[in-house]
Amino acid sequence: MNKKNIRILLEKVKNGKIDINKATSTLKDLPYKDLGYARVDNHRSIRNGFPEVIYCEDKSLDEIEGIINEMLKHDNNILATRAKRKVYDRIKTIAPETIYHQRSKIIFIKTHPIQETESKVLVVSGGTSDIAVAEEAVVTARALGSQVDTLYDVGVAGLHRLLDSLEKLDEAEVIIVVAGMEGALASVVGGLVDKPVIAVPTSVGYGANFEGLSALLTMINSCASGIGVVNIDNGFGAAHLASTIILQIEKART
Amino acid sequence: MNKKNIRILLEKVKNGKIDINKATSTLKDLPYKDLGYARVDNHRSIRNGFPEVIYCEDKSLDEIEGIINEMLKHDNNILATRAKRKVYDRIKTIAPETIYHQRSKIIFIKTHPIQETESKVLVVSGGTSDIAVAEEAVVTARALGSQVDTLYDVGVAGLHRLLDSLEKLDEAEVIIVVAGMEGALASVVGGLVDKPVIAVPTSVGYGANFEGLSALLTMINSCASGIGVVNIDNGFGAAHLASTIILQIEKART
Amino acid sequence: MNKKNIRILLEKVKNGKIDINKATSTLKDLPYKDLGYARVDNHRSIRNGFPEVIYCEDKSLDEIEGIINEMLKHDNNILATRAKRKVYDRIKTIAPETIYHQRSKIIFIKTHPIQETESKVLVVSGGTSDIAVAEEAVVTARALGSQVDTLYDVGVAGLHRLLDSLEKLDEAEVIIVVAGMEGALASVVGGLVDKPVIAVPTSVGYGANFEGLSALLTMINSCASGIGVVNIDNGFGAAHLASTIILQIEKART
Amino acid sequence: MNKKNIRILLEKVKNGKIDINKATSTLKDLPYKDLGYARVDNHRSIRNGFPEVIYCEDKSLDEIEGIINEMLKHDNNILATRAKRKVYDRIKTIAPETIYHQRSKIIFIKTHPIQETESKVLVVSGGTSDIAVAEEAVVTARALGSQVDTLYDVGVAGLHRLLDSLEKLDEAEVIIVVAGMEGALASVVGGLVDKPVIAVPTSVGYGANFEGLSALLTMINSCASGIGVVNIDNGFGAAHLASTIILQIEKART
Amino acid sequence: MNKKNIRILLEKVKNGKIDINKATSTLKDLPYKDLGYARVDNHRSIRNGFPEVIYCEDKSLDEIEGIINEMLKHDNNILATRAKRKVYDRIKTIAPETIYHQRSKIIFIKTHPIQETESKVLVVSGGTSDIAVAEEAVVTARALGSQVDTLYDVGVAGLHRLLDSLEKLDEAEVIIVVAGMEGALASVVGGLVDKPVIAVPTSVGYGANFEGLSALLTMINSCASGIGVVNIDNGFGAAHLASTIILQIEKART
Amino acid sequence: MNKKNIRILLEKVKNGKIDINKATSTLKDLPYKDLGYARVDNHRSIRNGFPEVIYCEDKSLDEIEGIINEMLKHDNNILATRAKRKVYDRIKTIAPETIYHQRSKIIFIKTHPIQETESKVLVVSGGTSDIAVAEEAVVTARALGSQVDTLYDVGVAGLHRLLDSLEKLDEAEVIIVVAGMEGALASVVGGLVDKPVIAVPTSVGYGANFEGLSALLTMINSCASGIGVVNIDNGFGAAHLASTIILQIEKART
Amino acid sequence: MNKKNIRILLEKVKNGKIDINKATSTLKDLPYKDLGYARVDNHRSIRNGFPEVIYCEDKSLDEIEGIINEMLKHDNNILATRAKRKVYDRIKTIAPETIYHQRSKIIFIKTHPIQETESKVLVVSGGTSDIAVAEEAVVTARALGSQVDTLYDVGVAGLHRLLDSLEKLDEAEVIIVVAGMEGALASVVGGLVDKPVIAVPTSVGYGANFEGLSALLTMINSCASGIGVVNIDNGFGAAHLASTIILQIEKART
Amino acid sequence: MNKKNIRILLEKVKNGKIDINKATSTLKDLPYKDLGYARVDNHRSIRNGFPEVIYCEDKSLDEIEGIINEMLKHDNNILATRAKRKVYDRIKTIAPETIYHQRSKIIFIKTHPIQETESKVLVVSGGTSDIAVAEEAVVTARALGSQVDTLYDVGVAGLHRLLDSLEKLDEAEVIIVVAGMEGALASVVGGLVDKPVIAVPTSVGYGANFEGLSALLTMINSCASGIGVVNIDNGFGAAHLASTIILQIEKART
Repeated sequence: MNKKNIRILLEKVKNGKIDINKATSTLKDLPYKDLGYARVDNHRSIRNGFPEVIYCEDKSLDEIEGIINEMLKHDNNILATRAKRKVYDRIKTIAPETIYHQRSKIIFIKTHPIQETESKVLVVSGGTSDIAVAEEAVVTARALGSQVDTLYDVGVAGLHRLLDSLEKLDEAEVIIVVAGMEGALASVVGGLVDKPVIAVPTSVGYGANFEGLSALLTMINSCASGIGVVNIDNGFGAAHLASTIILQIEKART
Repeated sequence: MNKKNIRILLEKVKNGKIDINKATSTLKDLPYKDLGYARVDNHRSIRNGFPEVIYCEDKSLDEIEGIINEMLKHDNNILATRAKRKVYDRIKTIAPETIYHQRSKIIFIKTHPIQETESKVLVVSGGTSDIAVAEEAVVTARALGSQVDTLYDVGVAGLHRLLDSLEKLDEAEVIIVVAGMEGALASVVGGLVDKPVIAVPTSVGYGANFEGLSALLTMINSCASGIGVVNIDNGFGAAHLASTIILQIEKART
Repeated sequence: MNKKNIRILLEKVKNGKIDINKATSTLKDLPYKDLGYARVDNHRSIRNGFPEVIYCEDKSLDEIEGIINEMLKHDNNILATRAKRKVYDRIKTIAPETIYHQRSKIIFIKTHPIQETESKVLVVSGGTSDIAVAEEAVVTARALGSQVDTLYDVGVAGLHRLLDSLEKLDEAEVIIVVAGMEGALASVVGGLVDKPVIAVPTSVGYGANFEGLSALLTMINSCASGIGVVNIDNGFGAAHLASTIILQIEKART
Repeated sequence: MNKKNIRILLEKVKNGKIDINKATSTLKDLPYKDLGYARVDNHRSIRNGFPEVIYCEDKSLDEIEGIINEMLKHDNNILATRAKRKVYDRIKTIAPETIYHQRSKIIFIKTHPIQETESKVLVVSGGTSDIAVAEEAVVTARALGSQVDTLYDVGVAGLHRLLDSLEKLDEAEVIIVVAGMEGALASVVGGLVDKPVIAVPTSVGYGANFEGLSALLTMINSCASGIGVVNIDNGFGAAHLASTIILQIEKART
Repeated sequence: MNKKNIRILLEKVKNGKIDINKATSTLKDLPYKDLGYARVDNHRSIRNGFPEVIYCEDKSLDEIEGIINEMLKHDNNILATRAKRKVYDRIKTIAPETIYHQRSKIIFIKTHPIQETESKVLVVSGGTSDIAVAEEAVVTARALGSQVDTLYDVGVAGLHRLLDSLEKLDEAEVIIVVAGMEGALASVVGGLVDKPVIAVPTSVGYGANFEGLSALLTMINSCASGIGVVNIDNGFGAAHLASTIILQIEKART
Repeated sequence: MNKKNIRILLEKVKNGKIDINKATSTLKDLPYKDLGYARVDNHRSIRNGFPEVIYCEDKSLDEIEGIINEMLKHDNNILATRAKRKVYDRIKTIAPETIYHQRSKIIFIKTHPIQETESKVLVVSGGTSDIAVAEEAVVTARALGSQVDTLYDVGVAGLHRLLDSLEKLDEAEVIIVVAGMEGALASVVGGLVDKPVIAVPTSVGYGANFEGLSALLTMINSCASGIGVVNIDNGFGAAHLASTIILQIEKART
Repeated sequence: MNKKNIRILLEKVKNGKIDINKATSTLKDLPYKDLGYARVDNHRSIRNGFPEVIYCEDKSLDEIEGIINEMLKHDNNILATRAKRKVYDRIKTIAPETIYHQRSKIIFIKTHPIQETESKVLVVSGGTSDIAVAEEAVVTARALGSQVDTLYDVGVAGLHRLLDSLEKLDEAEVIIVVAGMEGALASVVGGLVDKPVIAVPTSVGYGANFEGLSALLTMINSCASGIGVVNIDNGFGAAHLASTIILQIEKART
Repeated sequence: MNKKNIRILLEKVKNGKIDINKATSTLKDLPYKDLGYARVDNHRSIRNGFPEVIYCEDKSLDEIEGIINEMLKHDNNILATRAKRKVYDRIKTIAPETIYHQRSKIIFIKTHPIQETESKVLVVSGGTSDIAVAEEAVVTARALGSQVDTLYDVGVAGLHRLLDSLEKLDEAEVIIVVAGMEGALASVVGGLVDKPVIAVPTSVGYGANFEGLSALLTMINSCASGIGVVNIDNGFGAAHLASTIILQIEKART
């Protein structure tokens, strides 16, 4: 719906190449398909090569199936997040090539190959317990085309584990830090590099952790500059942000 | 302090090109100058061309002067944030070229010219009341070398104001969204572009705004993917994150 | 218990048309029936044609049945909210015409026809996951006599979906906006119209959403004027408020 | 920017009655004037007869003067909220007819007469300490054309004071309830009427009142249906919402 | 362990009527029995005729049985709160006279008769859903000897239901108000009487009720003086406080 | 407005002893005087001998003077809380007998003597810093007729100071505990006595005290039964509650 | 990775006693074993005789088994916290000597004997319901070599129970206080001794306890000096801190 | 008031060496002096050589002077915390040897020399802005006899500054970590040592720091074991806890 498109459409209307009802209808129908309970956006993925995405939480199996059925018509890759196993069981009946990443609860339907970027995203996690969220970021970033490396279980309570892996930090263009409990890892990584760091607080912890609030506040208040924070447990969002950054870098390469 | 440097040092030690005390001392003294109350980091700015930065809040005038005096020895540009006017009055006595951005309370001491990047940061703000924070982002991003454009007073309560400026959104590589009250602008911008969006909640508002908490939560929970959030009123942090992204893009250009 | 009624009663007492004990007893017994565990209010619905309403959460099956049995004596329509399926199973044994709206967990017992209003309520929802709450509003508003239209899955992350449906916004007298996550949709809709907007935050989301708190704060702090907010997930309350507005409009029509 | 307007414009483009650049420019320039630091919206007030509004908090005197100067060009009434006395002192130099409501900190510039509505808004307040907020609602509602009545100091700790004024509740089409401390007044009023109630929590109170949070939560959780809540101390917002309701009722009258 | 007892003991020690080790041991062993995991206090109940009390939450069946076994040795009445049915099933095997109040989850073992007080406690509840907590107060107050009356389902949304029962308010010496949702009932009752009101917020409600926090804040901030608040859902605590007041009144009667 | 009065009025109406307009007007005018900005309640104090009370916070000097002027017509004692010195300076010009308690910011105008009760309230405070709030309770309780004793600076960090004063605890009928910081004193006192304890959290403390929230939560969660909590710093409320208890005890004495 | 070690390594490199790759590799491989999903730290336990520790929450059975298998290679004692029974069932198949402390959910694998310290840790708990957390502290402290004594069910509501056990307080070098509800016990104990007190808030309680937040705030705000607080329910952390203190004391003994 | 003393007293009573009134009075008068508004505890300092301490916040100048006058009678050292300059100005008139530490707002009256401990406390701070709190800890610890070293401005955003000072960490027996913003320094230090770490969150920061709450939560949730947390900005408390630990170590040395 950007201005350039509007102008082109106006030109066509003026030149009589398109009639007004058609023009109005085009504007209306192009970007999505209205299923009643959902409006499937066929639009975004075409623009940048990203897959179409569906967030499964709080949706019924029928709704998810309906939305994916619509998506399958456009021959895009499809990513379904927060998908319970029963979602997978249903979807593989309509799309046999569906892959299920159990730990991160992501479904990926790869209908066409992905070209991996030259730039690299590094996903760093604090503890073994944070891996589910870290994997959500890894799977998402790969589905969005980014090259991904990982560095797990390097929490600040054993700093030498992180310091031994500085090369990995040096080699990535963007770093995603996934950490629960007090979330101090983001500040430490942010202090070691001068590149974009995306921090994902996790709900791992107990007591005054308050389901991730503690890690969220830590990261938002980080004394290290250059850190952007996403929602608690939102590995998907971090990977999406990382991939938009990578996209800009790749554009600059060409 | 990265591994490569350590290895080079080890080589030199082995070859007898450097003696052990010297090596240890090098490791120790290189990266900063200890002033007792502060350790000035001469290191970081050299690496990436960013200016040295000092956060003035809760520091005494004497401490700020001492730190800047030390910084001035290295011929770097210097940025001092959250600086009251009396800080400026003091600092210009030791650095006459000091510039004071009153609205954003930033001091900038430009000892050498900055090469502006080809990539662009766009700073978008919700209302006139958010401009102080927006300007902190603008001044910082420019001091860090980024080319900057602005788009002010385009809050969601008058959506047409934003929709009329889509070109500006299209032209930037990174977008910083500054918004108070309910902070919905970040989600709307995030839904219109597929590029990195950095959201800065401001403390503008009253009542259940709780000094910016409302806008912070809105932005962290945004239904639009690809948004990284920084602290309330932290225009500096947003600009720093934007500039590390720009840095990666510029590297790719070359 | 309004003043006019008191004055009429006083007149009757004075004229000896009613004796004092009777008068006192009338005041006491008229408005409700005391079941011990509940006082059924037969009063309100008669006044404005609204159905009698029972909130089922935290009530036992026996209590619910008892209350509805009492209500059935007055030949009013009955609405039971937050009703689990087992409530429906019990109630249909005493009122076979009972209809169960499973998604919104509402039971409706329609003992007499409803005259639909000329004015219209539009229920707008942000995402497919918010539909359960939106449907609670739809079913309630219809049971209260309002004409209802819907506009689903028009969240701000895909703004064009909303902008393509501006006509629906134009055609309604009152708009209910149901949105979870960051709840920005209320501000956007509020900025597009000059008519009453009722915002319902939902608990849809995760992490720093804190069970709907994020959306609630967003809506309460909206920079768009003319928005009234109800409790998290309170589709019923929004519809009730909408219907009292519609009632005033319909009165003015006549 | 609604669809009808777009269609008309398209027609004109097709018929050659308007050229494309002009059309694009029309869309762009019509709705507001860009002052750099602010975009004055000349649009909204024309549509519904409401005055133009400016929120003065966090804006400089120069900015406020600049915005009002722009507004004065359109011959609309102007309302400036949260205006300190020094704002008034400045503005009356450019608009001598300016009136300052000191208690509610509202400036009103009445450039043309207002036709009072037949429908009535009643503003009810809990205690004498809440009057500043109540007056903000009263002045705003009157400036927006609504007929207004008031009922002050009828807090629930002395219930008979409210019960003696039931007639006032009966005579209004919309009721605004302003209350601090625990805010219970909204529930009590909401239980006495079947008409729209708009609740304004105030920050009056101390201790666990937490600057109005207590009253806000009370009102949001009200067991009385049909209550819409606005932000703490937001008398303006309540009056705006009330006036959009009145507007719908008045439309129905004609 | 009050001073008078210490002085008596000192007298005995001085007069040689008791030897020092014995005196020390007396001080040590008198007030309770150490079971290892619990110290049963045989002391308190003797003093004022109150039953011995055990809070069952987070205790194992074995621990509860052990503690009650110890209590049974002293021939006091025993009250066990927050007792699941399986606790009752276990306890009735060792104390067949055990009575289980299912709704309020209280076990009462009445080993000797209770003399009912002349003074009266009135337990008022807002809605049917609050009855479980109200009943906890009723059963506890009766077990502590107080005469109890009840007034249920008189929430402020239907004020006439409360106003019709003012006599009950007049007849009691102490009033316990149990209310969830917004908890406004406490303020209304507190405004109608000049006697001690004890307010019990309940966790009944949803959304921004935050498990009773809303009602708690309402009651703590009540504009009606003379209200003391206990913990959310703490019917037991309210009844205990009421009974200590009744105890003082009864003492004064004699 | 209680039932007995209504019945008497009805009798008079029936017997023609009073005409209807008069009756209605009586009901309306009796209980208070409407000053426009305030409704002075002349009613309550007559009933129970308590003084009339005015809360000065957020009221203007003129309003306070107006209200007290009205109160002075009824020859009652008058208590004005949260009164700054300038309020006192104004009021003593209209009521020379006015006394100002500076520490607790209470004004007392004693127009007739108070009969001290036989029962006693004990006010206990944790630290010297809590005395301002404690004194608010002391002055209020005395103005309400209660006999008052005090026990200051007996915080739990030096438990022996409290244990040495057990006699004072034994001699009172009601105990008010005033404590800031963590507020543990209420639990300790509550565990030592079987009489009503009223707990007043104060805002004394810093850091995670959050303006008294910490002490409030401590007191609400007390493991000692029989504690009723009032708002933070609300010494007045505690004394009012204590005095209603004392009133019931005194009634029983006669 | 401390400086002394680095210097020794440098010496060896200089003297040719170790080649550079080896040195780099030593630094890299010594401190832990990378399992992919976890980095087992073999290092810490060797230094101070503490066992290796694994936190089982949010880890899969396979991961836990893998980590413990790696740990078993180093012949250290192993402590696994927050271990459900099924973890124990799995682990005992690979380490038959495994002991399971069911109440505190701790697994202990004792591969070599522990020398008990001369200094003593005393674990004090408020109520029977807090014992699970207290036992976590006891088992941990013993596994870390500390001599441990306990004092259970001495909550402040029955102060005499604590005052009768002052000797136990006198005999310990470090005291751990475990308490839920309002957590006042920490302040009372802290006021009775001049030795390090470690406070563990527990989530025992209900209502405004907010899962232990109340006890946490109480302890953090304690008016008694010399109290360090750990996370809610973190018996392990308290014991670990106590044991590091004991370690310093034991060092001083020798 | 420990048991041994009671037993000695009992012995004396038995042997007639002391009469009963005297014994009771001794128990009563020994431990403190009652000034009416304060009870000065002369007791504690004698026991362990610590100075007497007075917290000046919320106390009047007269009260502070009165308390210190009483303290001066016992020839102890005196520490007055949170003392504004005007407190110092007053106190030096009665105790000329008074020293004022302006940054940390501590007054120290050293009436007799302090023997410095062999064991050492290290105070580590994150940033220059945290020094005021750090100095409160330093001055307090020294006044309590501990040997103190400092390590300032070693925040995690420049990790090399901390890693270069590992020797200081190695040399201390107890470490106090003072840090604001996100407070991650405590976790990093806690991960580097196996000795007691006391964490002091500071209120330094802005926005979502919420006056130190962020740092407090970070420290309470630290993934590094062996950390005890004190209140926000409570340098005094941290030093007191550290000194009680040092006291135990010193005892073991002898």
